[in-house]
Amino acid sequence: VAISSAATAPVLARRVREKIEMLLPKELGRLADLASGWRVRVAERLDSLLGRRRFWETVFDGPAGSLAIGGHVDKAEREVARILLNFEAQPPEPGQAWLVGAGPGDPDLLTVRAVQIMQAADVILHDRLVSDAVLSFARRDAELISVGKLPGRDTNTQEGINELLVSLVRSGRRVCRLKGGDPFIFGRGGEELEALRAAELPCEVVPGITAAAGCAAAAGIPLTHRDLSQSVVFVTAQGKDSIDQLDWGSLARDRQTLAFYMAVKRLPELMRNLVSHGRSPDTPVAIIERGTLPRQRVLRGRLGQLSMLAEAQGIEAPAILIVGDVAGLKEPVTAAVSSSRQPGATHLSPIYAKKSA
Amino acid sequence: VAISSAATAPVLARRVREKIEMLLPKELGRLADLASGWRVRVAERLDSLLGRRRFWETVFDGPAGSLAIGGHVDKAEREVARILLNFEAQPPEPGQAWLVGAGPGDPDLLTVRAVQIMQAADVILHDRLVSDAVLSFARRDAELISVGKLPGRDTNTQEGINELLVSLVRSGRRVCRLKGGDPFIFGRGGEELEALRAAELPCEVVPGITAAAGCAAAAGIPLTHRDLSQSVVFVTAQGKDSIDQLDWGSLARDRQTLAFYMAVKRLPELMRNLVSHGRSPDTPVAIIERGTLPRQRVLRGRLGQLSMLAEAQGIEAPAILIVGDVAGLKEPVTAAVSSSRQPGATHLSPIYAKKSA
Repeated sequence: VAISSAATAPVLARRVREKIEMLLPKELGRLADLASGWRVRVAERLDSLLGRRRFWETVFDGPAGSLAIGGHVDKAEREVARILLNFEAQPPEPGQAWLVGAGPGDPDLLTVRAVQIMQAADVILHDRLVSDAVLSFARRDAELISVGKLPGRDTNTQEGINELLVSLVRSGRRVCRLKGGDPFIFGRGGEELEALRAAELPCEVVPGITAAAGCAAAAGIPLTHRDLSQSVVFVTAQGKDSIDQLDWGSLARDRQTLAFYMAVKRLPELMRNLVSHGRSPDTPVAIIERGTLPRQRVLRGRLGQLSMLAEAQGIEAPAILIVGDVAGLKEPVTAAVSSSRQPGATHLSPIYAKKSA
Repeated sequence: VAISSAATAPVLARRVREKIEMLLPKELGRLADLASGWRVRVAERLDSLLGRRRFWETVFDGPAGSLAIGGHVDKAEREVARILLNFEAQPPEPGQAWLVGAGPGDPDLLTVRAVQIMQAADVILHDRLVSDAVLSFARRDAELISVGKLPGRDTNTQEGINELLVSLVRSGRRVCRLKGGDPFIFGRGGEELEALRAAELPCEVVPGITAAAGCAAAAGIPLTHRDLSQSVVFVTAQGKDSIDQLDWGSLARDRQTLAFYMAVKRLPELMRNLVSHGRSPDTPVAIIERGTLPRQRVLRGRLGQLSMLAEAQGIEAPAILIVGDVAGLKEPVTAAVSSSRQPGATHLSPIYAKKSA
């Protein structure tokens, strides 16, 4: 990318400069010099490609890198020598697992940390619903494995996923387990973390924007509100068993917001249970279908019309159901999260609010 | 940043290349050429600096930019001419509001979208608790205004914040209202959105990682769990009134996780209320103090020991209290979100799991 700042409009130049500076230390040249002086020796002394890759990652991501960037060249050189001795002497490092939330769908709702990890991981084990736009943040040579489960039909069992995750990390790979939404809110991430713990493998957990928060923002519906709702309950309604186990007496109480995950096929039962336990059929509801994605739809209505509404409009998964007075607040002038876009050209562009779908 | 790829280790080169490519379209040179051809004319025909800035933002972020990047030079030129005519003819655009979640504290837990907006905003109205590390993502010439409220003592009232927000946007500024956590979960973002709606001003809402999700990930505690907890309730316990209004009978039920926000000063009351309504004093609890920040602490114990535990350890706000069987799962081998770091040099580095605090 060659840009002459004299020939470029100030806004563009500033934007490019800021975006690069955001990600790169200013003194990166010193790091490049350091690496340049060691490259031949490292190639001679470390046989495997994986070993060399890990060596450079250790140099750049550890104290050696910080020292070089800070101009402490001698100290940095000594640290690199020490790391190289270690790498010659030791067996290769164990692998690493990251349990990462991919957010509700819009790739711009990934966290900075999630992007960093996707660019570091050797393997990305992702849910079926994680979009190509999100996956395009992966390192080019990363292996992508879909372990998605279709609703109602397990293409991979949870046990199978746990085993695959453990075996990949045990073999020394760096594995990003990328899950829709947040890994610890209906993501079964707890079970995957337990499997890794049991195998004594390291794991970092990175939270993601959970679907209810993403959909609420996209639809302009606050989940809590000083005057209307003092708490919010996230609840799943995937199967009959889980619906029977729910405490409908509690869920039917006023002054709280309910956000139902995976509720599309159970809307008539949810409606019946809430109303029969005392929640008013006039309670406002909203269904957000494909929230934060380009073809997002927001349906608003009353609890008593819920199944009719959803059926008439042909609502399909993925969708979130929000029940509570907050869903009845006046519709926004414009309130939308950024819609999903292809990465690359997109990341300079749409910083303007779009009309909500 | 001048880097000779021949003189640089492959890992470093790849990393730099990927990070730049992630943010910049490959064909950016064409956009620079387009801008270069129009710069003098634009300077002659648009008087105000603000007007010229808005003009170039419209060019780069809209169809003109996409056309130029796509190599459709003639179409791009026509689009730029059209935009310039519009800018000459029209009064300046109205302002823009963004209601943005800053996440739980670690700047790497900002979303990509939040970073984009912080770099576009003229003004950032931020909560007191939003850290300098997060604010360092702001555009250099952005105005930063702290509208934080100290717990228990309003330095700015909510009404004052709403008025300031509306008046800034009405004056044509682009305002990022940056709130800790998620703007729609105990952030009073709903009220700010209502104020903007009432004034018929545009607003985009960008979700953030809410404190409970950030703390849960950092402490390795899943908020839901197939075997232990089918739902999670986010609830605030800031004042006596709000505690009295809570439905303790519902909160005391089993098989759900409770995440209390702003609970530090109310721990004895929370404990008493839960136990007197039937939740077992043996229920596991965890308090996460300064979750996702460098000096994070995680305390684990039982509901019946809650106030003793917190007092003995001198727990202070900000902290999240998690109540439920999930808090009793075995502690992780290593499970931590990345700790907070200064931006700049940091963004190449720590991609490795750290021991939890």
